[in-house]
Amino acid sequence: MVVRKAWLVRRIIVGLLFPILAQAGTAPEGRSDFYRDLLGLVLIILAAKLGAELFERVRQPAVLGELLVGMLMSGLALGGVGYFYALRDSAGLHAAAEVGVILLLFEVGLHSRLHEMLEVGLTATLVATLGVVAPVVLGYLVSSIFLPQQPWYVHLFAGSTLAATSVGITARVLQDLRKLDTKEARIILGAAVVDDVLGLIILAVISGIVSSIAAGRGSELDWGMVLMIVIKAVLFLVAAIVLGRLVHINAVRAGTHFRVPGIPVVIAISFCFTLAALAGEIGLAPIVGAFAAGLVLEPSDYEVYQERGELPIEKLVRPMSTLLTPVFFVMMGLRVDLRAFSAVEILGFALAITLAAIVGKQACSLGVWQKGVDRVLVGVGMIPRGEVGLIFTAMGAQMRVHGQPVFSDSIVSAMVIMVMITTLVTPPVLKALLTRTRRQ
Amino acid sequence: MVVRKAWLVRRIIVGLLFPILAQAGTAPEGRSDFYRDLLGLVLIILAAKLGAELFERVRQPAVLGELLVGMLMSGLALGGVGYFYALRDSAGLHAAAEVGVILLLFEVGLHSRLHEMLEVGLTATLVATLGVVAPVVLGYLVSSIFLPQQPWYVHLFAGSTLAATSVGITARVLQDLRKLDTKEARIILGAAVVDDVLGLIILAVISGIVSSIAAGRGSELDWGMVLMIVIKAVLFLVAAIVLGRLVHINAVRAGTHFRVPGIPVVIAISFCFTLAALAGEIGLAPIVGAFAAGLVLEPSDYEVYQERGELPIEKLVRPMSTLLTPVFFVMMGLRVDLRAFSAVEILGFALAITLAAIVGKQACSLGVWQKGVDRVLVGVGMIPRGEVGLIFTAMGAQMRVHGQPVFSDSIVSAMVIMVMITTLVTPPVLKALLTRTRRQ
Repeated sequence: MVVRKAWLVRRIIVGLLFPILAQAGTAPEGRSDFYRDLLGLVLIILAAKLGAELFERVRQPAVLGELLVGMLMSGLALGGVGYFYALRDSAGLHAAAEVGVILLLFEVGLHSRLHEMLEVGLTATLVATLGVVAPVVLGYLVSSIFLPQQPWYVHLFAGSTLAATSVGITARVLQDLRKLDTKEARIILGAAVVDDVLGLIILAVISGIVSSIAAGRGSELDWGMVLMIVIKAVLFLVAAIVLGRLVHINAVRAGTHFRVPGIPVVIAISFCFTLAALAGEIGLAPIVGAFAAGLVLEPSDYEVYQERGELPIEKLVRPMSTLLTPVFFVMMGLRVDLRAFSAVEILGFALAITLAAIVGKQACSLGVWQKGVDRVLVGVGMIPRGEVGLIFTAMGAQMRVHGQPVFSDSIVSAMVIMVMITTLVTPPVLKALLTRTRRQ
Repeated sequence: MVVRKAWLVRRIIVGLLFPILAQAGTAPEGRSDFYRDLLGLVLIILAAKLGAELFERVRQPAVLGELLVGMLMSGLALGGVGYFYALRDSAGLHAAAEVGVILLLFEVGLHSRLHEMLEVGLTATLVATLGVVAPVVLGYLVSSIFLPQQPWYVHLFAGSTLAATSVGITARVLQDLRKLDTKEARIILGAAVVDDVLGLIILAVISGIVSSIAAGRGSELDWGMVLMIVIKAVLFLVAAIVLGRLVHINAVRAGTHFRVPGIPVVIAISFCFTLAALAGEIGLAPIVGAFAAGLVLEPSDYEVYQERGELPIEKLVRPMSTLLTPVFFVMMGLRVDLRAFSAVEILGFALAITLAAIVGKQACSLGVWQKGVDRVLVGVGMIPRGEVGLIFTAMGAQMRVHGQPVFSDSIVSAMVIMVMITTLVTPPVLKALLTRTRRQ
């Protein structure tokens, strides 16, 4: 009895005090991490707005200013000022950045109508497929020319790294220039969703092949697993749209019976975060889930709440995205390491692979068969590579065949340079194209 | 040369890949932590709104519903459903909760005018001082009666644990009932600030005394250190108000020259988070900094932006606080471990110390010398103990004298029960008092 009571008391103490200690002051690192993150967040937001403003003034996309602010912060580390550079290891700031890009794609989705997206569905699929195949082939060729001593699966891996578009940059430029209503924008956004699914499949296939080779089983592949991934991704998208619409409509209806204020923002953000997290859990980009959430949700669903004094849903989301979306782009810039350029001997390969990435995506324009659609715009909009390219690169550096990493240090540096250039080059070209179109 | 290059390449690889690996998919735990937190956040927000709605319907404060939802989630763990219980160890959700209470006190500060606060400054200081001294004395007595075998510094530590009010609960009830404009509200809020400074000083003094005893130096104390803490706290408050006002006004003015949208929310939230983080860094509660930020910032400062189509500042902050403030109260409830009540032999002491905490704070009402002010309301508003009480408790459990912890397991359980009861008892009593006043 005494033993049991002592055990009980101990359980209580551990249960009670662990979270307190972990959180409330006696674990000072935890608390000051939070304060440091909060200050870091403020500095990043302020710097982002300064950069955005500067670039607005010289008629360049604001997002480019935010990216360059991040790169500048990263560069400061080379000059001995490591404060900002240290922020890139903060889990809290990464979470804030991730929520920022989730909110951006949610807003973009809010602005798009589902039936209009479905209208361009076939085109988008064609655009995405061409835009994935061409860079993979070109990347394979460049890799086999520049690195002839490497085996074929390295070239395949290098080509695959060029496959997936990162739509955040393009979405942001389209939003800033109020061009989300165009057919080109819808094709690009639709293609980005398909593109992400294709990227997921390619990642599974390529890492399956390399693992199989590493295990000495030749290049055989578990097609069942690949099929599962395809099914999961397609099921998710269909369920998000069909089931999601049903759940959402009912939530909005049920919410009208609530007396506590603030129901619209609660429903909308809950819906967005849920789909983003589920997309992430099955291996898709969370922004695909957020975009799907925005697509399913129609701002007019919430009109009934406006009669009670609630704001329209876009205005409820806007303050949060104003604060957090720039954090994503600054953190993206901050992740760039300018020292990559100092490895002179790989610059030739890096530039060739970047060219393959850019030229390859222009195959997208062949998928546009409608008249009156700006094909060049679609091709340029698909250029940016980000997250997914870096994930492929990291995988390539991690996987080993006969003790050798698939991606050597040089390939890694080249790929990082490719991601940087495709990201930085897109906003100004996109803006030039869009303002040219306007003048016609 | 080759060596140098290899070193350089290695530096690049480490510099480039570390953050990628740490963040982008090849470290799946990190990513799925984020997705899990995002889903957890959604579930907590939805459950909080359900709880709030339920309590609104039975004319009880919404915040009580949120607290009880958290306790229910904690209770589910005893029934084998550990999902929610596991969420309380999530750093991401704690950060979200912390931001939630920071936004709450910021909103409360926005609603208060600085000169009106300063008008009740003297009263608030008197209220806070009486409300700190009385519970410490009562707590000392209760501890020495129930635990006669313990040395005097244990009683002093136990008394000090009862010192500081946690103003979040009261602020929330006042906000929900739209009673922030009353003199009572101003006195309570002002007293809470002074109270937090006093709590910080007491914590320094008491832990100094115990450390000194543990080191065998008797109960001598580093008064220089205590003085430093007082100076830092007072300097922070004065600087936040005087310097803060100057910085803020100039930021608002400079911001009008910006072309990028969203400047008001950027300035206001940056100001709030900065003061909250600085308050935290010097050992004060971050909500004291957030309240000071709201106090300094006048909503009318931003009127110039409304002409450009920006919303009033309260409406910009509201969606964020709607989402995150309930997270704080649910997490507070979630932290409660119902097993504390199962240690029957300490219930007598626990109830006595709770009574000391509640009755002691009623000394506050003696500090109110103005006519027409509801003294009982002020006393009740000061009852809740939260964070600071738990920090004291955790410190007491950690500090050791001659190998024995200052706070035994029983004292820890009793203190946790005290925090729970003072937190849960306040909202309904406060609401009853406030609606009674209204009827007169």
